[in-house]
Parts: sequence; structure tokens; C-alpha cells
Amino acid sequence: MTGFTLDPRLEKDSFPVLDLPLCAVRVMNEVGVTWLLLIPRVPDLREIVDLSPGSQHQLMDEIALVSKALQTLSECDKLNVAALGNSVPQLHVHIIARFEDDPAWPGPIWGKVSEGGYEQVERDTLVSLLKTTLTSMENDG
Amino acid sequence: MTGFTLDPRLEKDSFPVLDLPLCAVRVMNEVGVTWLLLIPRVPDLREIVDLSPGSQHQLMDEIALVSKALQTLSECDKLNVAALGNSVPQLHVHIIARFEDDPAWPGPIWGKVSEGGYEQVERDTLVSLLKTTLTSMENDG
Repeated sequence: MTGFTLDPRLEKDSFPVLDLPLCAVRVMNEVGVTWLLLIPRVPDLREIVDLSPGSQHQLMDEIALVSKALQTLSECDKLNVAALGNSVPQLHVHIIARFEDDPAWPGPIWGKVSEGGYEQVERDTLVSLLKTTLTSMENDG
Repeated sequence: MTGFTLDPRLEKDSFPVLDLPLCAVRVMNEVGVTWLLLIPRVPDLREIVDLSPGSQHQLMDEIALVSKALQTLSECDKLNVAALGNSVPQLHVHIIARFEDDPAWPGPIWGKVSEGGYEQVERDTLVSLLKTTLTSMENDG
């Protein structure tokens, strides 16, 4: 797809894992939370309904894949899946592993964590683990 | 589908509009916000990934239908679409019409509105408008 540019705020706040057929998968650089983003690589998107029906289904497939990977890796108590975009309107779907003892529970996580970013070695380990898990699940799926 | 029971907190906090093939559509009883819920009528659901892949696609179709109806009815600045469920784990998807001058903008809406519930006449008007819009879009779709 041509003409897609990642919003600079999403680029600054997160780092890349891999590309799925529709979406870039990125990790929010918040060390206290396992928090992924799915960003469809389609220009000028704001809303899920701006995608074609076929791409909406593909987005759902990729939400399910990433959700299962987070469940496998984190044994979280709950997944939070959300497309908000009030501050950064470029379409991005948050998929967040939530725990009953996390600092924002049971409220939403946005604006409630500020433990800082990952060290490079933690970042590399997490990206490697996510790549392996997602690729293995994609091939099984 | 058998065995489905609506969580009593969702029942208390919202009122019914209509049933789509997968989901019950309900309105949150918060007069300041146009805030809908999609609740798959399937027992024992917590996560989107607990649905079969086919039902996940149906959920996405129903999210798109309700999203377009809200855009048509409200000319909102942004849609917020989210499955959180930290307090009420029964799977429910929030679809919320957000405005740049709403009381929580640009933050998430949860926990930030308390203008009270709809009067009966407002409730009846809103349900009627939503039913007409959703049914017309479903037939066009």
C-alpha cells in the first residue's frame, strides 16, 4: 500500500514488532504494561468504518491473533481492545493485557501509567518473543 | 441461542434498542453522551477471542453498522469503539459518539460523565430513531 505514513506521536510512543497483512504491530513504550497497537497501513484512516468490509474482517482477524498472543505470553486477567483516537486520530487499535493488580485496574489504562520506557535489552527480548509467538500462531491459524 | 443472560449491571445501566443477528444493541443511560453497547447473545463470553472466527466477523459487521448509524445521527468528531470489561466481564463493546466539546474530551469517557439518565420521552425518541436508522441501514447493507 502506498501513501501510508505513521503518525509521529505513535512513532515516538511505540516501537515496531512486525507487519501483519493489514496492520503494523507496535508496542507502547510503557514498561509497566504489555500494551500493543495495531495500525492499519492504509493512508488517511480515522475510523474502523473507513476500512472496506473485507479489511474490517482482516482487522478483526489481526485483533484476534494479537489478543491470543497476549493471552499466551501474559496470562492476563482481561484484554482491553479499543480504537479511541481522540488525541491521535490516525486509526490505531490498542490491545492491552490487564491485571487485577495493575495500577489502573479496574479503570481504563490511558493516562494512568508512567513508569517510563523499556531498556534496550528488555525491548529486544519483548520484540523477539512477540515475533516468535505471532509468527507461530499465524502459521498455525 | 440458549443460556444467555444479560449481566445485571449492564441491564441496570442501559436500555434495549433491538437485537441484531449476533448482538443485543443497548443505550447507556447517560443523557450527556450518545453511547451504545453491543452485547453478543452468547453465554459465558468474556473476550472477543472467545467467539468463533465467523462470529468475530459478524461482531465487526455489527460494530460497523452501529458506528455508521451513530455518525449519521450525531455528526460526531470521533467514534470510540472499545471492549474493556474490567468491571463487568461479560463481553460488551462500547460504541460512543465523541465530541471535541464533550466533558471528557480528549480522555476516555468512562467514569467521566454523570449527568443522569434519560427522561422516558427522550428515551423513547432515541430508541425509535436508532431502530429506524439501524433497520434502514441493515436493509441497505
